Amino acid sequence: MLSFESDYTTGATPKILKRLQEANLEATSGYGNDRYTRSAKEKIKKACGGKGIEVDLLVGGTQTNAVVISTLLKDYEGVIAVDSGHINVHEAGAIEYTGHKVLAIEGKEGKLVASDLKKYLEKFYADSSYTHMVIPGMVYISYPTEYGTIYTKKELSDIYKICKTYKIPLFIDGARLGYGLMSKKSDMSIKDISKLSDVFYIGGTKVGALFGEAVVFTKSNRPKNFVTSIKKRGALLAKGKILGIQFDTLFTNNLYFEISRHAIETAEELKNVFKKKGYRFYIDSPTNQQFIIVDKKKVATLRKKVAFTWWGEYDNKRDILRFVTSWSTTSEHIDELTKIL
Amino acid sequence: MLSFESDYTTGATPKILKRLQEANLEATSGYGNDRYTRSAKEKIKKACGGKGIEVDLLVGGTQTNAVVISTLLKDYEGVIAVDSGHINVHEAGAIEYTGHKVLAIEGKEGKLVASDLKKYLEKFYADSSYTHMVIPGMVYISYPTEYGTIYTKKELSDIYKICKTYKIPLFIDGARLGYGLMSKKSDMSIKDISKLSDVFYIGGTKVGALFGEAVVFTKSNRPKNFVTSIKKRGALLAKGKILGIQFDTLFTNNLYFEISRHAIETAEELKNVFKKKGYRFYIDSPTNQQFIIVDKKKVATLRKKVAFTWWGEYDNKRDILRFVTSWSTTSEHIDELTKIL
Amino acid sequence: MLSFESDYTTGATPKILKRLQEANLEATSGYGNDRYTRSAKEKIKKACGGKGIEVDLLVGGTQTNAVVISTLLKDYEGVIAVDSGHINVHEAGAIEYTGHKVLAIEGKEGKLVASDLKKYLEKFYADSSYTHMVIPGMVYISYPTEYGTIYTKKELSDIYKICKTYKIPLFIDGARLGYGLMSKKSDMSIKDISKLSDVFYIGGTKVGALFGEAVVFTKSNRPKNFVTSIKKRGALLAKGKILGIQFDTLFTNNLYFEISRHAIETAEELKNVFKKKGYRFYIDSPTNQQFIIVDKKKVATLRKKVAFTWWGEYDNKRDILRFVTSWSTTSEHIDELTKIL
Amino acid sequence: MLSFESDYTTGATPKILKRLQEANLEATSGYGNDRYTRSAKEKIKKACGGKGIEVDLLVGGTQTNAVVISTLLKDYEGVIAVDSGHINVHEAGAIEYTGHKVLAIEGKEGKLVASDLKKYLEKFYADSSYTHMVIPGMVYISYPTEYGTIYTKKELSDIYKICKTYKIPLFIDGARLGYGLMSKKSDMSIKDISKLSDVFYIGGTKVGALFGEAVVFTKSNRPKNFVTSIKKRGALLAKGKILGIQFDTLFTNNLYFEISRHAIETAEELKNVFKKKGYRFYIDSPTNQQFIIVDKKKVATLRKKVAFTWWGEYDNKRDILRFVTSWSTTSEHIDELTKIL
Repeated sequence: MLSFESDYTTGATPKILKRLQEANLEATSGYGNDRYTRSAKEKIKKACGGKGIEVDLLVGGTQTNAVVISTLLKDYEGVIAVDSGHINVHEAGAIEYTGHKVLAIEGKEGKLVASDLKKYLEKFYADSSYTHMVIPGMVYISYPTEYGTIYTKKELSDIYKICKTYKIPLFIDGARLGYGLMSKKSDMSIKDISKLSDVFYIGGTKVGALFGEAVVFTKSNRPKNFVTSIKKRGALLAKGKILGIQFDTLFTNNLYFEISRHAIETAEELKNVFKKKGYRFYIDSPTNQQFIIVDKKKVATLRKKVAFTWWGEYDNKRDILRFVTSWSTTSEHIDELTKIL
Repeated sequence: MLSFESDYTTGATPKILKRLQEANLEATSGYGNDRYTRSAKEKIKKACGGKGIEVDLLVGGTQTNAVVISTLLKDYEGVIAVDSGHINVHEAGAIEYTGHKVLAIEGKEGKLVASDLKKYLEKFYADSSYTHMVIPGMVYISYPTEYGTIYTKKELSDIYKICKTYKIPLFIDGARLGYGLMSKKSDMSIKDISKLSDVFYIGGTKVGALFGEAVVFTKSNRPKNFVTSIKKRGALLAKGKILGIQFDTLFTNNLYFEISRHAIETAEELKNVFKKKGYRFYIDSPTNQQFIIVDKKKVATLRKKVAFTWWGEYDNKRDILRFVTSWSTTSEHIDELTKIL
Repeated sequence: MLSFESDYTTGATPKILKRLQEANLEATSGYGNDRYTRSAKEKIKKACGGKGIEVDLLVGGTQTNAVVISTLLKDYEGVIAVDSGHINVHEAGAIEYTGHKVLAIEGKEGKLVASDLKKYLEKFYADSSYTHMVIPGMVYISYPTEYGTIYTKKELSDIYKICKTYKIPLFIDGARLGYGLMSKKSDMSIKDISKLSDVFYIGGTKVGALFGEAVVFTKSNRPKNFVTSIKKRGALLAKGKILGIQFDTLFTNNLYFEISRHAIETAEELKNVFKKKGYRFYIDSPTNQQFIIVDKKKVATLRKKVAFTWWGEYDNKRDILRFVTSWSTTSEHIDELTKIL
Repeated sequence: MLSFESDYTTGATPKILKRLQEANLEATSGYGNDRYTRSAKEKIKKACGGKGIEVDLLVGGTQTNAVVISTLLKDYEGVIAVDSGHINVHEAGAIEYTGHKVLAIEGKEGKLVASDLKKYLEKFYADSSYTHMVIPGMVYISYPTEYGTIYTKKELSDIYKICKTYKIPLFIDGARLGYGLMSKKSDMSIKDISKLSDVFYIGGTKVGALFGEAVVFTKSNRPKNFVTSIKKRGALLAKGKILGIQFDTLFTNNLYFEISRHAIETAEELKNVFKKKGYRFYIDSPTNQQFIIVDKKKVATLRKKVAFTWWGEYDNKRDILRFVTSWSTTSEHIDELTKIL
């Protein structure tokens, strides 16, 4: 069946499979001590600006959030996120499982507003009983957000400035990073992301890999004995080279960004299809996730012919549906959808 | 370089890569809700005896141990293991990270002795202050063990009987399960393992898969909302079908056991090579891990030509080296080794 | 200095000190295995209605919340509370430290509204991705609330009905229970509290004891091996009899309720003083905590002569101050305050 | 009944009760922000040598161990202790509950032997797979030990030297500190303990207080925001002054050491009683805990007339019993015991 359900429904970009095949019988040491992983890290480091960059390859997004947040937070700290942030909603309490609170701030279209962050921090320290409260120790944002929106360079800079004032790291969840950076509305490169954050990750799972997320520490701030902390959380892949090969491929000849751009282009086509058919959008998303308002009766009909994500109710008569493109979406898929609509 | 370093140094058995390739562009739902995963679970269920069997697919071994142990233990309980058990030594404290103590009992050649287990439990409950101590809530053993040894059916039955008396589950770490069951010394099938335990896992990572461990709950005892508990621990793979395809392949036409048997056969060849050259064994292992006593000078020479694991010092003059075969070891590898020795 | 800062500023009701003195040199077993503790539990059990009641004595409120919530929640569950709930704000993340999320719902004057709870639960289970979210496993409310307000019997019954529908326990934080039950607006007894909840605690720290909170499991639902779970959390007092003696005293001849009523009477006097002086109240509290709106200049003057809690800003010119009475507040204190105002 | 069961069977040294009485109606701020706590900390600081000393007052021993160890350990670290260490046996897994492993080393009569510690650390770092293991991050010892034995200054210095070489803190559990320091075999003062450790605590619960343990950070190394970490663990007493008054009393006019010496003197009397009657000792303890080998039949008879702790079986015919004196043991108690024996 035609599917716009998500960006993790298909396998991997063909070049990755080819290289897995080629390297298959080569024996290498485990746990990332192999030439593919070294090469991948080197390429990512270079792409992100070089100096002070340190890279680790993990398996999945929730895992990466939990590993990074729990190793960077101090005992008495929690992590600030918008209420719709992935760590606050759809990770089954993975952050709390590590003993830390998610400090939720109301977001706007999925984004953290710098002035709201400032207000939160000022109010916190103005409260004389703050030592009995969870001390904010990190800011978590997603780029793009769970609503497909992206921060401008100015917005990100403003947030990062506040973080630096309060001496708390800024962590960017980049599960869909490529789709954000390749958006036509984006005014940032991966080097900007690297400059304007303390740690972020480059999503592979949703952007062309079978799985894998590349964590980038940007300011020579990789936690000490990080491999042991990863192992302790059951997050160290034995055959690390499978991750190495994938990211080495994605960061060869700009592949990661090329396939991301492709998804953005099909997303634009998809938007146009809906627009032409007179549909309204729940949110104006410039990335690969599109949120469409659809009459409930139509939803029932559509469901038989195309897969999507039911996002919630818009009102009594209409639902919000999410349609997502990816590196593997083709113009044929869009054509099929046009017919169905 | 020639490598007998471990059984996770190469990729996957070729059939797996072929099927990943074939399914690559097919869109399926995520998180294991796909036909490959369903099929894999069904085949594993059948292989294990059917009734009461429930299967989940996870990514890695330490992760699986942590997920299973921490969801089955009650708040006030710990898990019994031999001192050399993987969870007690080489998982960076992953069990303790979940808030539970590993209760270590001295093992014999890596195995838990039933009478030692009994003594431990009797002594525990004879101690009037036991409510101030960690209450034993599970028994963990490895099959084969970290020393390559295996339990006989009688030995396993004896342990399981004690577990049932004390009403605590028996959990078998089967990271190398295939290599244990295909050992010429084994008197058990996977159905026996299933009968004589409450939960175990079928190692994929070390037995032909890129990664993956299949957890088998054997007595209709899968924890409620287990998917949420897996997600909470960052252990739920988004593209679950990658796991599904791998285990579906391994459990089609007995492939898992065939490639395991192959590794045992090359292990026997390897043993013979060492024996003929006059080497002594640290332990008499009937599986794919072999522990050889080697003169320290020879170790230095060997290191240049072949990869192995340095296991520890035997005495001032000699070391213990571990040589491991796997599904991907060939007779050519053995021949090469013969020349080197 | 005159103090209305809180209800934990003085020591213990004199009878408690007297009995500690009398029992001082008597040797008893530790950890609650003593006749005083047994007697205290028996008296509390009787006061709460007898059948199915089980009692444990702990040291402090945050500790009690963490112990009860973390032992009753299942692995994949979180606890629902209003946003102003003590566990959500002023316990430094003690619940999250146990690995569980606090699921915050907007409250009304500190109270959870039954219909809001219902809506939350309905929406949760209507979301098809709920297995990726923290499953609500308990409802936590405070009686009286952090704003001094109390639930009517009807309101509590409505909440409890919903809990029973969803099969999740209702836990009442009774750190100030006596002050709630003795309020002139209260239409409930401790037996009602016991009937309409699964577990609650009777605050001693704020109601006449040096310290101590009596946890009451009301439906034969005390967790198995609860003492071990308490010990594991460092919450088991060695000299348990110190707790036993205090609660035995408080539950002899209705003392707990008598001293609570006294605090309510002085709170009424205090309210009248402020009213007569023309002050406005931030909230209409029928218990021992009073929230007064005070001009910022006046706040500065007052601070020199009387201790209170600064609760927050009301607007640019006015603050909210909290004045609290307790078992140890006297009419002389109120007279002094009158002069100061 | 006559009791030598433990040193936490009676209440508090009378001066403490007197001062609690005197301060009872004085209103002070909570959580340790009161003049009694300040005074107590100052006196302890002075007693311990002054410079660099920082003091916190907690409620109980297991709680203190968990708070100190879990706030000082880094994410990837565990704590070394002898197998008989309190944290390894009788705290229901409180350390593991905080996510950290106790790394047990075989002790000698309850003591950690410096050369064993050295060997453990050398072997650990010689293992090439150590990053997959729990990294030793602290050494925990008890003074006196769980067997009543004490370290000499030379022994403690040797251990501390190793800790400094490996840059890991040394933590001394001083639940019975006074009884150790006042032992006739002791060649150390509290200033020595302070010099030769990074953190230790002064047990109040077992040495004259109703409850309370004073944590002493000795090298300006108190963790940042420690109060928040204490609160997060439910270990912050609301009426902090109850702790303050107790330790202020104990550290006025040397009271802590005087009552400790008294317990040692009655322990000597008790030893003599057993010696004269021909009993043998399981261990030669120079402190207030005595371990006597008693014929099983005699055990049954004794049990009717005197309380003690059954420590374990010596052989088929004999048990090991523990008899403990304390600040509240009198010569009359010893006389009574003589008659019974």
